[in-house]
Amino acid sequence: MEIKHIRNYQIGIIGSAGWEEYPGRKKPDKKAFQTAYEIGKLVAQNDAVLICGGKGGVMEEACRGAKENNGITAGVISGNERRQSNPYVDVEVVSGMVNNGEEALIISMSDGIVAIGGGSGTLQEIATAYRSRKPIVALKGIKGWADKLANTYLDEREIIKIDIANTPKEALLLLLKRIKFLGKASIYDKN
Amino acid sequence: MEIKHIRNYQIGIIGSAGWEEYPGRKKPDKKAFQTAYEIGKLVAQNDAVLICGGKGGVMEEACRGAKENNGITAGVISGNERRQSNPYVDVEVVSGMVNNGEEALIISMSDGIVAIGGGSGTLQEIATAYRSRKPIVALKGIKGWADKLANTYLDEREIIKIDIANTPKEALLLLLKRIKFLGKASIYDKN
Amino acid sequence: MEIKHIRNYQIGIIGSAGWEEYPGRKKPDKKAFQTAYEIGKLVAQNDAVLICGGKGGVMEEACRGAKENNGITAGVISGNERRQSNPYVDVEVVSGMVNNGEEALIISMSDGIVAIGGGSGTLQEIATAYRSRKPIVALKGIKGWADKLANTYLDEREIIKIDIANTPKEALLLLLKRIKFLGKASIYDKN
Amino acid sequence: MEIKHIRNYQIGIIGSAGWEEYPGRKKPDKKAFQTAYEIGKLVAQNDAVLICGGKGGVMEEACRGAKENNGITAGVISGNERRQSNPYVDVEVVSGMVNNGEEALIISMSDGIVAIGGGSGTLQEIATAYRSRKPIVALKGIKGWADKLANTYLDEREIIKIDIANTPKEALLLLLKRIKFLGKASIYDKN
Repeated sequence: MEIKHIRNYQIGIIGSAGWEEYPGRKKPDKKAFQTAYEIGKLVAQNDAVLICGGKGGVMEEACRGAKENNGITAGVISGNERRQSNPYVDVEVVSGMVNNGEEALIISMSDGIVAIGGGSGTLQEIATAYRSRKPIVALKGIKGWADKLANTYLDEREIIKIDIANTPKEALLLLLKRIKFLGKASIYDKN
Repeated sequence: MEIKHIRNYQIGIIGSAGWEEYPGRKKPDKKAFQTAYEIGKLVAQNDAVLICGGKGGVMEEACRGAKENNGITAGVISGNERRQSNPYVDVEVVSGMVNNGEEALIISMSDGIVAIGGGSGTLQEIATAYRSRKPIVALKGIKGWADKLANTYLDEREIIKIDIANTPKEALLLLLKRIKFLGKASIYDKN
Repeated sequence: MEIKHIRNYQIGIIGSAGWEEYPGRKKPDKKAFQTAYEIGKLVAQNDAVLICGGKGGVMEEACRGAKENNGITAGVISGNERRQSNPYVDVEVVSGMVNNGEEALIISMSDGIVAIGGGSGTLQEIATAYRSRKPIVALKGIKGWADKLANTYLDEREIIKIDIANTPKEALLLLLKRIKFLGKASIYDKN
Repeated sequence: MEIKHIRNYQIGIIGSAGWEEYPGRKKPDKKAFQTAYEIGKLVAQNDAVLICGGKGGVMEEACRGAKENNGITAGVISGNERRQSNPYVDVEVVSGMVNNGEEALIISMSDGIVAIGGGSGTLQEIATAYRSRKPIVALKGIKGWADKLANTYLDEREIIKIDIANTPKEALLLLLKRIKFLGKASIYDKN
């Protein structure tokens, strides 16, 4: 029996949570959701594992996109209770953390990050990814921190430039290119 | 398209690491490895996700058993570098921890634990699982902490008794029964 | 013998690291250092405990200010090795983390935060503090993320507004007021 | 003004929690409490910082012993809420963890460990300290895991032998000797 040794990339998706976290406010951007779904789909089609926060909104759509295309998904959640994730999460990473420290796990599990819109959680994650020298691609035109920080460095250290992409496909291709260039993951790259 | 909403159990396997951690010493117990493989297989056949430390020895055999039976596996590793796990790990949980704190992640990710032999790492994990009121089943007759602590409580709190099983099948059936009885996971149980 | 039951505030100081992290670049802002020293001094004089990252730059100056005024200081560091902090750290919190997750510890240990200039690490910490509903006061006129984000909310949730202050004294008074108003800490407040 | 650069040892004390965690059961060992107090006192008198879990029982007595002798104490607690520690804790390390992962912080913060009696939490901590190659001294004659494991290695790796002592004084002297011998901390040792 042939077993594919899974040494594939792990791609993190970060972005706005679902309506449940924004009570009484504007609905989340529909474009953000469609983009997230597409990213999840492309991650699966590229044999990569999808990493995210496991909650609703952008995270759920990305997981749905991956699962509807036979991908594998992981959701990193806060707290110590199982079964808090959206229904498209395969592996629930119950972080045991309740001080927002779990965001760092999403980043350390990922070879690279796609950022879609996003509030303060996304901002925290982008800053963490930048400091960890992980490639970050921000989707253009979706309101939030990803859009605001696209095409910039976060400080004078110029550790890594936050890339910008216009479409999900462009985003994923650029991210995979960056990951391979950084070479961190390329040793085991089957291609 | 039918998507199976994955709300399945996550089963942790803990036990002796591979030869690489015991230089110049006796080879790991062959029976431990066979048992681990069987447990991994049974975890996959029961549609559960296998959680482990991602390293060699018992962990690798369990992952191999799961992957050769179409299961999903997750390996929790120390440090901040990707691609440190055995080749049968689907989702690498790069914990970012280097003070042995990552063991707690294995436990919090698991609905229940199978323990096979094991040294000080396994001892730490059993104590953590006990304190987290997670069902633990120890395999009988495989030298190590699992065997030593089988059929006991770890302290006067009598939080949870460490169960004992003679075979992989007995172990997994007992563990699933305990998990369902505890009911933590049963709410979402599709069966 | 009278023992003062120490239920005092813990005040976090975040901001630019020292020269060692900015090789070949501009020297850190002298005003940032003086401000940090003053904040540390005021924290000690108010019987509060100083929490910081334990490294050089703003962190060392704040610790020095606290220690030269009989305060108590704690430094949260990455990794698993002791004795990495600046010499003015009393309690070294060896986080065991190497994925930047340790920043969340600085925030969860603090009742409120003073932010001085700062790069991507400070940005990560401000976002974490905001999400944890911890009062944040940014010093005006010292280049960096604290200055950029002063007087804003980080997202539409409007969890907490980042306050602005012109002087160390103004910053600490405002921060203590905010902490008391939030009431989280006030139950045990001896005043 | 002379500032003592604090590069002193950090000594962890682990052991049985207070009555509050053992409802309806036997009272904690009075000898355990007296021993803890003495250890705390000796830690302070040796200019070391006391590290512990910050709760009641052995932890509170050790902190009281340290504070009544002008020492500095740190308490590592679970969760994300401030002001949960016993009144003798100077620095509250709010770990943000709720999966028992915070125990690893107690160990990584400590140069060496004194273990007094203790249940499953102490067992977890001893195993963690052993794996981290931290010297451990167990007090003889106080019922619990420390007593049971005294004078043994936890596994075939023989990483570090758990030492045994008859009195608090013997325990601390032996522990300081072991720490110095290991040399981890000795570089900065002022003696």
